[in-house]
Parts: sequence; structure tokens; C-alpha cells
Amino acid sequence: MVRNVAIIGTGMTKFGEHWEKSLRDLIAEAGAKAVDDAGISGKDIQAIYGGTMSAGRLNGQEHIGALIADTLGLNPLPSTRIEAACASGGVALREAYLMIAGGHYDVVVAGGAEKMTDVYTEQASLALGGAADQEWEAFFGATFPALYALLARRHMYEYGTTEEQMARVSVVNHHNAALNPLAQYPYPITVDDVMKSAPIAEPLKLLDCSPLTDGAAAVVLASEDFAKKMCQEPVWIKSSAQASDTLPLHDRRLVTAIDASVLAGKQALERAKLKHKDISVLEVHDCFSIAGIIAVEDLGFTRKGEGGKAFEEGVFDLGSDVSINTSGGLKACGHPVGATGIKQAVEVTLQLQGKAGKRQVDAEYGMTHNVGGSGATVVVHTYGRDV
Amino acid sequence: MVRNVAIIGTGMTKFGEHWEKSLRDLIAEAGAKAVDDAGISGKDIQAIYGGTMSAGRLNGQEHIGALIADTLGLNPLPSTRIEAACASGGVALREAYLMIAGGHYDVVVAGGAEKMTDVYTEQASLALGGAADQEWEAFFGATFPALYALLARRHMYEYGTTEEQMARVSVVNHHNAALNPLAQYPYPITVDDVMKSAPIAEPLKLLDCSPLTDGAAAVVLASEDFAKKMCQEPVWIKSSAQASDTLPLHDRRLVTAIDASVLAGKQALERAKLKHKDISVLEVHDCFSIAGIIAVEDLGFTRKGEGGKAFEEGVFDLGSDVSINTSGGLKACGHPVGATGIKQAVEVTLQLQGKAGKRQVDAEYGMTHNVGGSGATVVVHTYGRDV
Repeated sequence: MVRNVAIIGTGMTKFGEHWEKSLRDLIAEAGAKAVDDAGISGKDIQAIYGGTMSAGRLNGQEHIGALIADTLGLNPLPSTRIEAACASGGVALREAYLMIAGGHYDVVVAGGAEKMTDVYTEQASLALGGAADQEWEAFFGATFPALYALLARRHMYEYGTTEEQMARVSVVNHHNAALNPLAQYPYPITVDDVMKSAPIAEPLKLLDCSPLTDGAAAVVLASEDFAKKMCQEPVWIKSSAQASDTLPLHDRRLVTAIDASVLAGKQALERAKLKHKDISVLEVHDCFSIAGIIAVEDLGFTRKGEGGKAFEEGVFDLGSDVSINTSGGLKACGHPVGATGIKQAVEVTLQLQGKAGKRQVDAEYGMTHNVGGSGATVVVHTYGRDV
Repeated sequence: MVRNVAIIGTGMTKFGEHWEKSLRDLIAEAGAKAVDDAGISGKDIQAIYGGTMSAGRLNGQEHIGALIADTLGLNPLPSTRIEAACASGGVALREAYLMIAGGHYDVVVAGGAEKMTDVYTEQASLALGGAADQEWEAFFGATFPALYALLARRHMYEYGTTEEQMARVSVVNHHNAALNPLAQYPYPITVDDVMKSAPIAEPLKLLDCSPLTDGAAAVVLASEDFAKKMCQEPVWIKSSAQASDTLPLHDRRLVTAIDASVLAGKQALERAKLKHKDISVLEVHDCFSIAGIIAVEDLGFTRKGEGGKAFEEGVFDLGSDVSINTSGGLKACGHPVGATGIKQAVEVTLQLQGKAGKRQVDAEYGMTHNVGGSGATVVVHTYGRDV
């Protein structure tokens, strides 16, 4: 009953600090690139889903679905904003996918955007705090680095994970970002650089943390009939899974894993009938280095507690059996919150199409893993070159 | 291919100023009532869609999908927030409807909530301005009453609509609200009361304007098989349509109509194979009295320019051929922004189930009309007692 769905076009802005561009400008650029890449015209498109976390607090603008349709000249199409904190983009992708899979539309644009540098850093930090539990966490002063620092400390205590192992996550991300012309920080760093960077929320240091970023990304999704007609190299979305967990950390079963990642990852593989060894390219949600370690464990690419060791041993380096964050990840490609989940899909699509330039790896199947807040929303997608 | 979908349970809080309740409390109350009314248990539910406009600015809380799932004890279900300004609730309903219609789920909860009184009125007004165009309207000082005052002035100029006719919209709403125990302002007013109320943005006066409101509403949607098994009096969603228009007013074809309402209204009737005369109960988005007049014209329940006269002549009074805003509308039942679109669905469901108490009318089919901002998003649904 569920129809096949492909990505037939991708587009994104450079991620970084865009002082001369507005949220609108970023949306226009990414959207136009994706539509152009798909080789379609506006009249082919039937609906739009856009992910943005906090445009209200960062830009004074809500009603983002309407903003997108207007900006792209796509009125009167239905255009809908999804907000799921840092998973906004991934959930927007899922909505677009399910709409085509369910037979409602044949061509849908899914996008994500965030313009974070138009406010002072403290205001941006407060806005990001809205992804946590306002009443039980943010109100008491917890920022996101503070919350993930709790996860890191416990992971170190339980499994002996070291600060140097966490640093390796950032090193891998920067290595890959250096090969990605659209990355915010396209240069390599060393474990020593991370260890000597300023403490943010111990044990997390500056270079363990993803940055504030402006950026947008978009993909064009199409039904099988449309995709086969219009696209030489469609990338098929093999599965989609979304799960939730308690908003505050203190209600969780434990803090060394994100249960919603475990469940969504398992469902995504099962629904696609794929195994771990099939996945060669994987974008994980490394908002902090410890999040990258927990992600590979939760998704089952290492045993529990062995994520730090695996990163240290180079298991996830570019060109290995499973190359992680070939885009540079949140850490080094940048993290314009609502755009991140879509950028992950863009990166995996480029890899499967053989268009990833200097960071190209050999891959038949890929996966993206997008986390909201400290794990209260997780959305996982798998992708393949075969329908 | 599209499956039939029914509303099998409804719930809402009293609309008003809930000084003793948080956004979470409101969500818990409405959600629990809807699930209880449906006679199902949490394990029957497969997904959640929630509409909220500006919880980030009003409550410091984003990640509302996660908040809802956590609050209702429904982890690890996928739970997704929709934001479409004042149409957030209606679009959340549409997403839930399309997911069941497309075969992805059998039982979905759609809800909406807004807690607006925890900030100063000026802050709430600025947050609501985020539904307009921040760069081209709100930045220059335009508030929502100011934007709708422009529509009113032009409508008066083009069609001879009078302030007294607009006042009649508020009179109708208050008449009905007086019969609705959950309304924010459950008492009648007169045209004279409206005319003597304080000017807000001329020609709009205080009693032409919907208020700031705290509240939440929820409905349980189900597939045909589930609905017929579990529910004695399902109300079927006959159709759903959503359209967009330019975000700022100055780019519109004209300001005496909302084109997205015209299109969505037309599509909704066509898709349901219904005619205007079939609709006996109609909830329109009367954020301001002029919006009620424009709505009945755009939706085709009067000829263009004759909406004011129709309200004056009592065409839309309770018990007429088409009773408008039996709930009391945004004006008098209240307008907790994200909840409004869901409250409209609750009201029409109660009317079609014969459960609307003192405001009960005789109706076979109903319609809801939910507008975001000044009309950049419009979503229309139709409902019936027959599948």
C-alpha cells in the first residue's frame, strides 16, 4: 500500500555566518537550488514541508510555512512548518515522505532553515534551551552543553570513555568538513586542539560543541512514477522512523543512551529490510562529541560503551566500512538547527549519487539520524540506490 | 485509495485566563478528555500532531511534540508539532487526517494549545506579530488589529460595509458563547456595546477583536474500521484543503478577500461532494469582526460584499440555515491561537453528535475555516454524520 519515494533533487546554502542574508534569503537559495537540481518547475510541486526550530525567538518570525511558499513563489500550495527542536528538518523530511508514500502527492519539497546569528549569543543559547524542558531544566539554568555534559560524565563513569575519545569525534568531523566546500569550519583539527580548547561545560570543551550557524537545505521528493520519468539518479528513501522520549533528562530510564534513537534506528533498519553492514554512509547527530559516541552505540554500529574506543581506533573514518558524517557533521559542517536534518539527507543523497567530490565514499545504502533536544525526539531515515 | 477517517473523541479545557495552569496542564487536560471520550487507551494511539503558534516566545518552550507525548504519557510515539500561526490547530488536524487517510496509522490524536497570559500583553502582541511578515509588516509597527483594520477600511469603501454590521458579528458570537460553558466570555452583548467600546485600530474597537486566551483542545481520529468498532457516533471528516498566499498584505491581489480561503473552501466542498446548502454548522475564523464578514463571502455563503448585510439580517444566527460559530467563535469563545483550529473541529463534532447542549442546532454536515495570520495560510475541513 505504501508507495516508493525518491529524492530527485538537493540544494543547500553554505553553512556559516551569513551577515548579509536573511532567513528568507537562505530559504530562497536552498529551495531554488533543489528545484533546479531536480530539473522540475514550480508547477510540478504539490506541497511543501519546512523545518525550523526557533525563528520566532531568533527572527521574530513564525508562520514559516507561509514564508517559504511566498519566498519560493509557490503560492497557493499548502506549505507547512514542522518544529521538533534540532530534529525539525528530519521530521519535515518524514512528513513529506509519508505524504507521497500515502498517495496524497507526487512531488513535495522538504526543507529546513535557521538564521541564528541575528541575536546575541546568549539569546541564541536561551532559544536553544527551548528544546529542553523549560519548566524542569532551562528555568534552572541548564543550557544544552550542560545537559550533554551530564551524559558525558555518566558515560565516562560507566564505560571508561575518555575526553580524548570524545575529541576524536570532532577530529573525524573536521577532517571531513575540510573536504566539503559548504562546511562552516572546513579545516582539520587535532585531538590536542580539542583538549586545549576552552572549557564550556566540563568535560565538554569548545571543540566538542557544535556551533551557531546560519543555513538552509532542501530536497525534492517524488513518487516512483515521477522520479523514474524525471531523474537519472534518484535516491530512494528506504524507510523512515520517528520516536519520542521524556522531555527532561531526569525522567529517562538512563542517560548513557537515548532510547528514542535505539527504537527509531531499529525500526528504520527493519522497515527497510537492511542490516548494519549494508550501511556505508551514516550521518549522526553529533551536536556534542559525546552525542556522536552515544549515537553509534544506540544505532547498533558498536556495542554499548564501545563508541569512544571505536572512534579512537578510526572505525568511522572516511572510507572505512561505515563512514560517519562525511558532511562534517553538526560539529564542523555547522548546525543551523532546522536545516540539519535536511542537510543530512542532502549529504547521503550526494554520496549515493557519486556527487560528493573529495569526500566521496563507496556506498550502496545510507542512514541519517536526527535528534531533537537531548533525545526527546529522534528521526531516522535509510536511503538506497535501488528502489 | 484514500481511506475514510472519523473523529471518535473530543476534549477541551475551558478557554480563558488560566493563571493556575501551565501549557503542560492545559495539554494534559484536553488530551485526557479526548482519549477518555473516545473510550480508548493510550496503547491504541499510534501518533500525535499538535498545533502551537508561539510557545517559544510565550513560554520559552519549543519542542512541543515531545512535550505533548511526555505530558500524556505516550512515549515513545512519534509526536509532531505543527506551526501555521493561527491556523496551527487546523493544519495539525489536517496532518493527522492525511496520515490515517494515507494508510500510515489507524488512530492519531490531533491537538492544539496556547498559553498566552504568562507574558505582558505587549509581549503577546509582539509574538502574534510573528504571524505577519516580520520584515515588511511587524518591523514597521503593524500589529494584527492594524492589519485587519486595513481590510475593514477597504471593505467599507468598496462595499459600503458599516461598523454596525461588523458589530453584529461580535453580537452573534457572544450570543452563542453565552450558551457554551467552556467559552471565555459567556454573556451576550449588543451592537451598542460594541460601538461604545474603546477604539483599538480604527474602525476596529475592543469588542471587534478576539482576546488573548489560554486553552487547549484535542480530537481522536481513527480509520473507518477502528471507528466503526469503537465508536457509536463517529463524525466523519469528509474533506480537507489547505492553501497559502503571500505573507504580507501588500503583495496580495486585493485585501477585501482572502484568496487562500476562496481556494481552500472551494476545494473542501468539491472533495466532499457537498454544496453550500448542505452545510448547517460553520465555524469561521473571526479573529476580528471584519474577518467573519470576509470569511462568509470567501467561502461562498454570501455574494461578495454582502457579508455585513447578511450578519445584520440575522442570516447566520443560531438555528438559521447555516449557524455560524455556535461555539462563540474566536471573539467570544476565545482564541488560544494553536488550539482554535482544533476547537472548531470539536464544536462541529459535538453539533453533529447532538451533544452541543443549549446551543444545539439541527445539522447533517459542518465546516471549519481556520486562518493563519492575515490569510497566508488557510485550512478548511468538512464533516458529516455519514461515512
